[in-house]
Amino acid sequence: MTQQRVRVGIVGPTGYAGMELVRFIAQHPYMDVSYLAGSGAHTGPIGDVLPHLRRLSGLPTVSAFSPAACAESCDLAFVALPSGESGAIAVELATRGVRVIDLSGDLRLPGDVYRAWYQREPLANEVLARAVYGLPEVNRTDIAAASLVANPGCYATAAILALRPLVGWVDAQRVGPIAIDAKSGATGAGRGAKQHLQLGELANDFYPYRVGAHQHTPEIEQALDGVFRILLTTQLLPIPRGIFVSAYVQIDPDLAPAVHARYASFYESAPFVDVLPPGHVPHIKSVAGTNDCQISIAWNERTRILQVFSAIDNLGKGAAGQALQNANLMCGFDETMGLSGTALWT
Amino acid sequence: MTQQRVRVGIVGPTGYAGMELVRFIAQHPYMDVSYLAGSGAHTGPIGDVLPHLRRLSGLPTVSAFSPAACAESCDLAFVALPSGESGAIAVELATRGVRVIDLSGDLRLPGDVYRAWYQREPLANEVLARAVYGLPEVNRTDIAAASLVANPGCYATAAILALRPLVGWVDAQRVGPIAIDAKSGATGAGRGAKQHLQLGELANDFYPYRVGAHQHTPEIEQALDGVFRILLTTQLLPIPRGIFVSAYVQIDPDLAPAVHARYASFYESAPFVDVLPPGHVPHIKSVAGTNDCQISIAWNERTRILQVFSAIDNLGKGAAGQALQNANLMCGFDETMGLSGTALWT
Amino acid sequence: MTQQRVRVGIVGPTGYAGMELVRFIAQHPYMDVSYLAGSGAHTGPIGDVLPHLRRLSGLPTVSAFSPAACAESCDLAFVALPSGESGAIAVELATRGVRVIDLSGDLRLPGDVYRAWYQREPLANEVLARAVYGLPEVNRTDIAAASLVANPGCYATAAILALRPLVGWVDAQRVGPIAIDAKSGATGAGRGAKQHLQLGELANDFYPYRVGAHQHTPEIEQALDGVFRILLTTQLLPIPRGIFVSAYVQIDPDLAPAVHARYASFYESAPFVDVLPPGHVPHIKSVAGTNDCQISIAWNERTRILQVFSAIDNLGKGAAGQALQNANLMCGFDETMGLSGTALWT
Amino acid sequence: MTQQRVRVGIVGPTGYAGMELVRFIAQHPYMDVSYLAGSGAHTGPIGDVLPHLRRLSGLPTVSAFSPAACAESCDLAFVALPSGESGAIAVELATRGVRVIDLSGDLRLPGDVYRAWYQREPLANEVLARAVYGLPEVNRTDIAAASLVANPGCYATAAILALRPLVGWVDAQRVGPIAIDAKSGATGAGRGAKQHLQLGELANDFYPYRVGAHQHTPEIEQALDGVFRILLTTQLLPIPRGIFVSAYVQIDPDLAPAVHARYASFYESAPFVDVLPPGHVPHIKSVAGTNDCQISIAWNERTRILQVFSAIDNLGKGAAGQALQNANLMCGFDETMGLSGTALWT
Repeated sequence: MTQQRVRVGIVGPTGYAGMELVRFIAQHPYMDVSYLAGSGAHTGPIGDVLPHLRRLSGLPTVSAFSPAACAESCDLAFVALPSGESGAIAVELATRGVRVIDLSGDLRLPGDVYRAWYQREPLANEVLARAVYGLPEVNRTDIAAASLVANPGCYATAAILALRPLVGWVDAQRVGPIAIDAKSGATGAGRGAKQHLQLGELANDFYPYRVGAHQHTPEIEQALDGVFRILLTTQLLPIPRGIFVSAYVQIDPDLAPAVHARYASFYESAPFVDVLPPGHVPHIKSVAGTNDCQISIAWNERTRILQVFSAIDNLGKGAAGQALQNANLMCGFDETMGLSGTALWT
Repeated sequence: MTQQRVRVGIVGPTGYAGMELVRFIAQHPYMDVSYLAGSGAHTGPIGDVLPHLRRLSGLPTVSAFSPAACAESCDLAFVALPSGESGAIAVELATRGVRVIDLSGDLRLPGDVYRAWYQREPLANEVLARAVYGLPEVNRTDIAAASLVANPGCYATAAILALRPLVGWVDAQRVGPIAIDAKSGATGAGRGAKQHLQLGELANDFYPYRVGAHQHTPEIEQALDGVFRILLTTQLLPIPRGIFVSAYVQIDPDLAPAVHARYASFYESAPFVDVLPPGHVPHIKSVAGTNDCQISIAWNERTRILQVFSAIDNLGKGAAGQALQNANLMCGFDETMGLSGTALWT
Repeated sequence: MTQQRVRVGIVGPTGYAGMELVRFIAQHPYMDVSYLAGSGAHTGPIGDVLPHLRRLSGLPTVSAFSPAACAESCDLAFVALPSGESGAIAVELATRGVRVIDLSGDLRLPGDVYRAWYQREPLANEVLARAVYGLPEVNRTDIAAASLVANPGCYATAAILALRPLVGWVDAQRVGPIAIDAKSGATGAGRGAKQHLQLGELANDFYPYRVGAHQHTPEIEQALDGVFRILLTTQLLPIPRGIFVSAYVQIDPDLAPAVHARYASFYESAPFVDVLPPGHVPHIKSVAGTNDCQISIAWNERTRILQVFSAIDNLGKGAAGQALQNANLMCGFDETMGLSGTALWT
Repeated sequence: MTQQRVRVGIVGPTGYAGMELVRFIAQHPYMDVSYLAGSGAHTGPIGDVLPHLRRLSGLPTVSAFSPAACAESCDLAFVALPSGESGAIAVELATRGVRVIDLSGDLRLPGDVYRAWYQREPLANEVLARAVYGLPEVNRTDIAAASLVANPGCYATAAILALRPLVGWVDAQRVGPIAIDAKSGATGAGRGAKQHLQLGELANDFYPYRVGAHQHTPEIEQALDGVFRILLTTQLLPIPRGIFVSAYVQIDPDLAPAVHARYASFYESAPFVDVLPPGHVPHIKSVAGTNDCQISIAWNERTRILQVFSAIDNLGKGAAGQALQNANLMCGFDETMGLSGTALWT
C-alpha cells in the first residue's frame, strides 16, 4: 500500500521553532513542506534568513500569511507565532478544515487562568475547548483523534515529564509544594532582537527571571491533574538551546526504593523518554537537536527529598520536535517519523 | 604613622585560586608578594604559565615549595593546594610562626565528618582545633585573632551567605529540609586537565554531579549552626567562573514581609554583601572577578516558599578574594584592601 | 536487486572522529557497525563514555583492538587513532584484505616530508605508495578504486577546497606566496585532556599556535600540485567545532570577473561543496555537524587581492564525514549516503 | 602640591564604551565623574541598566544630554555615541571650552574619505581640522596639546600598532599590499539589540562581514602615513570582547633578523604595548579588561612573509581605555593613571 503524503504548512518558519520544523520535516518520509508563511517581514527563499537551510531543496518560498492560501495548500499546519497572535490563526485554520498544531500558549489554559498569567485577553472558551493538550506521553489517544492541538510549553514539557509518574502514585497531600529549578538556553525567548539576549550581555552570565510569575506554572499544575502545588523558577543559561529541570519532591521514604521502577515502567512505551540507569544524569548536550527527554532520579536519604532531573531541547521536545510528534499521531504515522536524529556531543 | 608592610607567600600560585591571589595582592597597598612556590612542576617566572601576569613587576619567581624558605620569607601565607595536600602544609607553616590561610577543605570539618565526606584520612583533632573558619560575615572577630584560618569552600560560601540571616530568626523546626540548587563555572574544579572540563565537552552543556554527595554539604550545615538539614545539588555551568545558588525555604508566612529587612540589616556592615532591592536578581557577571556577593529574596505566596538567590565568583568570594579578606582581618587592615575592583559586564 | 550490506569497523570510536563515524554510519542505509575497538582504555558500551550515543541500538561493545578480530568482522574499517599509531594499523588491516580509511596524517605525505613536519619516523615508502589521498573533489576516481585511503587533514581540507579551482587556471608564478589564515574549534586537537583546552582556559580567548610549523602545510601544497607556496596560520577558536579559512591570493586582475564562474563550475558536481552567491559568506554554524563545505570569494580591487573564504566542520568534512564519503566511493555507493543531515543553526 | 582634580563628563554612559569609561575613571586618582548623560532613553541611576556598576558610589544619575549642563559641570568630556551623532556633539562641547575626546569615527578622516566609507555626510573641514588623532604611541605630543581628540577605531588601533614600526623602516614599494585578517568580539558592534548578535545566533559561529568595505580601512592607511595599501578583513568571534589581528607583510628577507629589535625599541617607552619575546603569541584573554596591547612577530622563511599578531580589548585600548589614556595626556597626568588593572585569565 502506498502511504498518502501529507502536505504541511508552517506559519512562522523564520523563528526558531519554525526553523526546526523545516529541518525535521525535511527528514520525514511522508510529509512535504507545501507552504511557508509569516508576518510578511521576510519573504522569499528561507535560506536568505537562515543560511543553514540554503541547500534544502523543494521548499516553497516564504510568503505573507493568508488563511485561504494556507488552507488550500496544506493538509496540516503548524502555527509557530508569538502567544497572542498564534492561537487565533490556528483556530481559523482548523475551522477551514486544516489539522493544526499551535505552538503558542494561547490554547493551553482555561480563559481565566490565561488572563491571569499571560495578562492578555484569552480566546473564547468554546474555542479553547476544541484544543487538545499535545503531550503524547500523557494523552496520546486524544491527540491521535484531535484536529487542533495545543503544543506544550518548553519548560512545561520538561517539568511535566519529570513529575507525571508521581501523579496517582504518591500521596500528594504529604508531598507539599514542589520546587522546580529550571534553566533554559537563550533560544527559548525567541529570535527577535532583545538587548539582554545579545551575546555581549548573556555570555558568561546566569540569572533568574520572571521569579514566581512564569506563565508555564499553571500549565504544569494542570497537566499534573492539579494534585501538586509547584513553584517554577526559570533561569537563563548562556547557551543557545536546552532546558534542564531539577525538581525537589518530599515523598514518603517507603516509596523511595520503588521510584526508579515506577519511572521506567511509566515511560516504557514512550520512544522519546529515556529514564537513565541509577548513577547517570541527564546532559543538555545529549538531547540538543533531538526530540528526546532524559530523566534521572535520586533519593536523598538525609533530607528525604526525591530529586528528579530532566533535560530536553527547548526547540525539540520543547517545541518543534514535539509538534511533529503530535502531527505524526494525528496522521496515524509512527510517532518517531522524522525525529530519529542523534545529538551532537560537541 | 607608617604602615608596616606584610610579606606574603602563596603556595600553589599557578592554580586558579593562587593566580587570583597574585592578582589581588598586586593591588594591595600594604602587602608584597615575597614568595611563590608550588609542587615544582612549574618553576620560573609566573608569566610563563599565566601570560596575563607577565607584566606584573616585582614578583618572585616560582620555586619548589620548602617550608623553611617560606617561613623565612613570609609573614603570612596562603596555601592553595588540593585538599589532602594543603592542610598539612598550612599547619606546618603555622607551627613555624607564619600566619596562614588554607584554601582547601582540610581544616574546615571535624575529623569524622571529613573522613565521611572526603573519603580521606583527616588531620589530627588537636590540629583541626587550631583553625578558625574564615567566613568574615559570620565570625569576623575570631578571624581577626586567628593565626590559622580555614578558608570556606566556594559553594559553601554562596549557600551560607544566602541562609545565615535565617538562623535564629525562623523556627528551624518548621522549616524542614532546604533544597539548595547550586551551579558553578568550570574553574571550580581546578586547573588540572580533565576530559570532562575540556571546552569541546562542557561547552553548550549543563548537568549535575556528585548528586547528594558533595563535600560542602556538612560545611554548610555546620556554618548554619546545625539548625537546618540541607540538600546541596551541584551543577556545572559552561562558563569559566561564577557560582549561583537558588535556595528554597519553607518559612512561616507571617515572617515573609520582614525578610528583606532582616537580610538588609544582617549584612548592613558587610562591605562585600549586597542585598538587592526587591525586583532585582543577582547576576554572575556582576560579581565575576570581585569579592562581592549579591543576594536577593522573593516570597512565593502560592507555595509559601521563600526563594533566596546568591551569586559569587568561585575564585573571588569563593576562594582568593575571601582569603585576602581574611588576611586583611588577621593583619588589622581594612577588610576591603586590595579587593575594590569592579566587575566587567561583558 | 538487493544491496549487499557492508560490515564496518571503527578503530578509535571514543575519540571525536570515531564518535562522529558512529553517528554518521547509524544513518547509512547499507552499512552496519560491526566492530568497535580502541586501545583498551575504555571497553564496554560506547554510551558509557559518550552519553549521546546511549540509545543507538545494535552497536557492538567497544573491545581492545585486535587486527585479526577486526579483519574477521569487517569488510571496511576506519582507523581514527593519533598520528604515529594509526597508519601502521591501517596498513596491517589493508594487508589482511580489509578496505581501510586512515584518518591520521601517517599516510598522506612522502616519508621525508613526513619526517620533517611530524618529527617522527615515517612508514616505509612502499607502504606509503599504496595509499590514495582521499579528497573526492580532487581525485574521486582514484578513491573509488582504492583499498587504502589516507583521509585528509581538517585544515588541509578547508584550505585545498578553497584554492584548488585556481590550480591550472591562474598563473602560479604571478601569484606569489598565499597566506592562509585558518581558525579551528577545540575538537581539532582531539579528546584527550589538555590544560590549554579546558573551558576555563580557552573560553573567551583566541590565539595562534604552531606558527609557521603546522604539519598540514606540506599536505596543502602537495594537493595543490606544488604550484603554490603557502603560509598556513592556525588559530584556536573558543568553540567546539568548525574550521574557517581566509585565503589571500594576488591574482591577475583580468581574471577577477571570471573567478566566481570558475569556482561554480569546478564544484558543479561536488555534492558537498556550496559555492555561495556573491555577497554571501560562509558560516561555521551552517556546516557544523555536516559534511558540507561553504566557499565564497571576493575580489578586492584596491589591493588586487582575491579573498577566498571556506568553512567546514573539522569533524565532518574535516574528518569523519569525509571518511564516510570516501568509504561510499570505495563501496560503489552514492557518495552522500549517511551524510544528508542539515546543520543546527543554534 | 595638591593635584587639581578634573571633573569628567561621559556622554553615552550606558553603551559599552561609556560603561567602561565609568569603570576606569572610578579607579582614577584625580578624576571624578561629574556628569553622565545620554539620549534620554535611560535616565536615573546607572546601576539600573548596568547592574555591575550598582555599587560604585558618588556617580551622578544619568540625565538627558544638554550641552550647556555638560559644559558647566565638566572640565573634560568623553563623547561615546554612534558615528553620525557623536562628532557634532564633541565639537559643540569643545567650542564651549570643554576638553573633549570623541570615540566615534566622525572626526578621524578627511571629509571626502569619510563620505566614501561611512556613506554619510561629514562635518565641515574646518571642524575636522581641529581634531587630533588620538593614538598616543604615534603622536603623544600632539595629543598632550590638543583640546579635541578623535579616538581611534578598535580595529584600527590593533592594526596600526601592529604595523607602525614598519613605516619608514621597510621599503614600502617592495612590500606590496598587506592583508590584515582581523577578528572581533561581539561588543565591537555596540549595545543596541541586533538579531545577528543574539547569543542564539552568534554562539558557536564565526564569519566575516563588510568584506572589503570596513570603514577602518582608510583610518589605518592614514595612520601609516599612506605608505601601505591594506586589505582589512573583519570577522566576528563568538565572545564578548577582544580583537585579534594577524597581518601578513612581505618584507625584504635581509630585514628579518632585525624586526624584533625594531619593534621592541619602537615601543620601548609605550607603557601599554608589550612586544612579546620570540615564541610567545598574544592572547585576547591577556588583554581583556585592560588598556594593553600584545604584539608578536614571526618571520616565515619559506614564504618570506612577516607575520605580525596583535591583541587588544576592543573596549579597552580599542575604545575607553585609549580614550582615558588620551585624557591623561591632555591633563598632564601620567598616561597610565586609572588604567593599571590586570586581566582576568578565566
